[in-house]
Amino acid sequence: MGRFKFEDDHRYLMPAHFGGMKYVTTNTIYRDVTNLVVQYRTERDAIEPFVPEALEITDPILTVAFVMNREVEWMAGGVYNLVAVNVPVRFDGKVDHVAGGFSLVVWENKVTPILPGREATGIPKLGATIEDARHLGRLWMAEAAYEGNTFLQLSLAEGDEVPAQAIEQMNRVSQETDWLGWRYIPNVSGPGAALNHATTFPQGSRIRSARACTGTIEWKALTWQQAPTQAHITSALAAMPVLEMTAAFVTRGESILLGDKARELR
Amino acid sequence: MGRFKFEDDHRYLMPAHFGGMKYVTTNTIYRDVTNLVVQYRTERDAIEPFVPEALEITDPILTVAFVMNREVEWMAGGVYNLVAVNVPVRFDGKVDHVAGGFSLVVWENKVTPILPGREATGIPKLGATIEDARHLGRLWMAEAAYEGNTFLQLSLAEGDEVPAQAIEQMNRVSQETDWLGWRYIPNVSGPGAALNHATTFPQGSRIRSARACTGTIEWKALTWQQAPTQAHITSALAAMPVLEMTAAFVTRGESILLGDKARELR
Amino acid sequence: MGRFKFEDDHRYLMPAHFGGMKYVTTNTIYRDVTNLVVQYRTERDAIEPFVPEALEITDPILTVAFVMNREVEWMAGGVYNLVAVNVPVRFDGKVDHVAGGFSLVVWENKVTPILPGREATGIPKLGATIEDARHLGRLWMAEAAYEGNTFLQLSLAEGDEVPAQAIEQMNRVSQETDWLGWRYIPNVSGPGAALNHATTFPQGSRIRSARACTGTIEWKALTWQQAPTQAHITSALAAMPVLEMTAAFVTRGESILLGDKARELR
Amino acid sequence: MGRFKFEDDHRYLMPAHFGGMKYVTTNTIYRDVTNLVVQYRTERDAIEPFVPEALEITDPILTVAFVMNREVEWMAGGVYNLVAVNVPVRFDGKVDHVAGGFSLVVWENKVTPILPGREATGIPKLGATIEDARHLGRLWMAEAAYEGNTFLQLSLAEGDEVPAQAIEQMNRVSQETDWLGWRYIPNVSGPGAALNHATTFPQGSRIRSARACTGTIEWKALTWQQAPTQAHITSALAAMPVLEMTAAFVTRGESILLGDKARELR
Repeated sequence: MGRFKFEDDHRYLMPAHFGGMKYVTTNTIYRDVTNLVVQYRTERDAIEPFVPEALEITDPILTVAFVMNREVEWMAGGVYNLVAVNVPVRFDGKVDHVAGGFSLVVWENKVTPILPGREATGIPKLGATIEDARHLGRLWMAEAAYEGNTFLQLSLAEGDEVPAQAIEQMNRVSQETDWLGWRYIPNVSGPGAALNHATTFPQGSRIRSARACTGTIEWKALTWQQAPTQAHITSALAAMPVLEMTAAFVTRGESILLGDKARELR
Repeated sequence: MGRFKFEDDHRYLMPAHFGGMKYVTTNTIYRDVTNLVVQYRTERDAIEPFVPEALEITDPILTVAFVMNREVEWMAGGVYNLVAVNVPVRFDGKVDHVAGGFSLVVWENKVTPILPGREATGIPKLGATIEDARHLGRLWMAEAAYEGNTFLQLSLAEGDEVPAQAIEQMNRVSQETDWLGWRYIPNVSGPGAALNHATTFPQGSRIRSARACTGTIEWKALTWQQAPTQAHITSALAAMPVLEMTAAFVTRGESILLGDKARELR
Repeated sequence: MGRFKFEDDHRYLMPAHFGGMKYVTTNTIYRDVTNLVVQYRTERDAIEPFVPEALEITDPILTVAFVMNREVEWMAGGVYNLVAVNVPVRFDGKVDHVAGGFSLVVWENKVTPILPGREATGIPKLGATIEDARHLGRLWMAEAAYEGNTFLQLSLAEGDEVPAQAIEQMNRVSQETDWLGWRYIPNVSGPGAALNHATTFPQGSRIRSARACTGTIEWKALTWQQAPTQAHITSALAAMPVLEMTAAFVTRGESILLGDKARELR
Repeated sequence: MGRFKFEDDHRYLMPAHFGGMKYVTTNTIYRDVTNLVVQYRTERDAIEPFVPEALEITDPILTVAFVMNREVEWMAGGVYNLVAVNVPVRFDGKVDHVAGGFSLVVWENKVTPILPGREATGIPKLGATIEDARHLGRLWMAEAAYEGNTFLQLSLAEGDEVPAQAIEQMNRVSQETDWLGWRYIPNVSGPGAALNHATTFPQGSRIRSARACTGTIEWKALTWQQAPTQAHITSALAAMPVLEMTAAFVTRGESILLGDKARELR
């Protein structure tokens, strides 16, 4: 017989049978993070069909973050880029009462960070082509594409530097923020779920510099033929009207993923 | 509140809240598949530490398949490449008695097919750079790398065409083969598993042409600094001695993923 | 002093000082080529500004070929994809009188074949993201993008198989076709050219199977911010109206690049 | 006839017929450059066969620079990575007397900067897979690969920060440095050269911060089957013994490509 035994005090990811790690901590630091953020108000009616019933949308505002992660410790100091789309929600369960950004979807340009994000914490990460943003003078430009099909275009024009005092204030608030997900693992056979529950994966950040910006964003609905597993997602986002740009900014600093505080919400 | 409701008769993958599909079938056809296969005998002792206790290794033979999948129906006719490493096992549980190849690990060069393979069927797929194999006269050459670090080199020299009658015989056998996996989904907080069980994901194939080959294979153990989440896997495989090449062949044909017959093994 | 000497009977590409090859032949075979072709009539006035004065446009028809090259001998049996845009022209010089397709532009998804194409034969190859085309039933779909920005979308719906006799006829015609380029190498300092002349790079093909198709094509003009060195090219092509689709077809077969017959046109 | 005319005061790159730019300047700034540099002494005899006779090697020291270029102005603020290998030489011609680093070879991970580098200035740029370097604490790690085949591994361990005064001194020296190349463009037909001459492409840099390091480097000789157009280059470099590491450092700052001062050397 095989001789691989699962250890109760270990943490594994597939393939588990090559061995896991004794559980100590899952906190991890990203030492060099550039965050391009655009926020806009849309219609509540346009978002609600895509948010589970257990969550209350506190404000119909979408936050789209284009993030360049560098010096990622758990990836041996490596890099990856992502696009995250959040909407602010409240979860009031039997046990947990939590407010934070609900992760509608995340696209990442590498496989490695996608897997634990989905499986361990319910963050709905997908793959896409996401080159580094271009930075020309005060202009930032960025895109995301699925196999040659552009579905997102972003730009930010930098304004003034945020003063140090305001950054200190931002850092006090951002020491720990709830980031809500929804972990869904299907049954192997037939319809229905093996796991189906809300999660939170708290995040911290230490901003070193920031600039207020003016931003633009454009979603493009892909067809099934262009992106068979993502067309419906790009279509849903493209159909949410941009009523008003409410904020845009660029920050540089450090992120801390507080995996130790991640938990199933009940 | 959000208005997204999970439907009992649907099948979802994260992000589930953008909608799933009414469950009809999960069988799917790959119309154009080139399969470069190398098999070799290694030491039983070298494999057993990496096979769960519930599985019996029936023969200490590793099968490494380098596969170019084209005309993949569920991906709108798209393509992807993979490297799969299997060892033959038996599972004798309370309910199920199954023999087939156990998927030690699979590397794929696109994110899209990795996600359902892991989450729905327990096939331990990871990401890698896998270019199309080169085909020069009768020689095939292929590599797999993790972010610029080569960890696998394969070559096959084609011999004679397999006669039609022998292919017919192969096709009778390969109509349905069990492919065993092990689905492991960790708890969100702390060590331990939310899901932890054997699976089978039966596959069929219809070979159109085949050639016997002589093959070579070389694994390279990567360091944690080169491949933080995969170093231990490449090291384990590189440490399994190649005692004898037992077979090598190239086939071209069609694959049928029999998702309807996938199930948890008990 | 350095000891590298240029040999008169050798052929070099930069870096030349690592050595070249004694000139024997530059013919080379591509053993497995899939060619998706769309042809359309546009306005003569829209093309003429982009064709050098020495060339006469014989018909204002653009041919766009999306080509998947496999088993490329000079690349050790490797693969690459390209998009080529041609217009039929005549060159009547003092010495040469040649008719063929003039290469307005070619995009390729690998660097290796771009370099000799430009430098040795004046074919204006550029880089782009060009995934394998998707093939779903009788539909082909393909795109080209520059760093996440789609600039070309193609589709072809396959009709009937071309009969063997017609393919024989095609193969007689396609044994040697002139493919005209224009080699331009700038001065190192200041404006003006070090080399500036028409070329031909004859090509042969042996088609094994073909299907008539109905095709669609859409060019998208990129901005300087999206594609600083290619925006003007995509804009020029996007501005050429599609007056009538004149042909579309898919072929599979072999290509022979007749480098030995390539020459400067005078 | 075509209506495209070459303008004498313009500068073009293929495809020239889509238009060039009135020549004003070809200087360009790279605003954010991270430079990982390793220098080592090798045997003069091992280098000389790969340096043209017109150049005198002043010191048998190879400088390998792994460079992450960001905020590249002429690429609309985009990014690319490169590996450059230089050896210090003197050129004493009839007109020009120049000392600087001779560019043995450069690998870049994007096509766009490769083309003008080769064609306009004779810098022998090739394509490779070059991910961003990983930065973990004080350790930098980087690789270069050709289609899945690693040919270079670098690491640098950071020591102390270079003091501001020393950086000022470095910046005085590095305002303009000759970077020598050798432009070779073959004849279209037959052996021999259409262009064959030494060049210089002066570079400036403004370092903002620097650290002395200890470095390691390993070249791997690829085979023709792995890298048909680059095997001989990797083999030549792998055969140059590392007699002594003479320096290693990391700098961050700005580069200025002094295209206006580039010229053919006579």
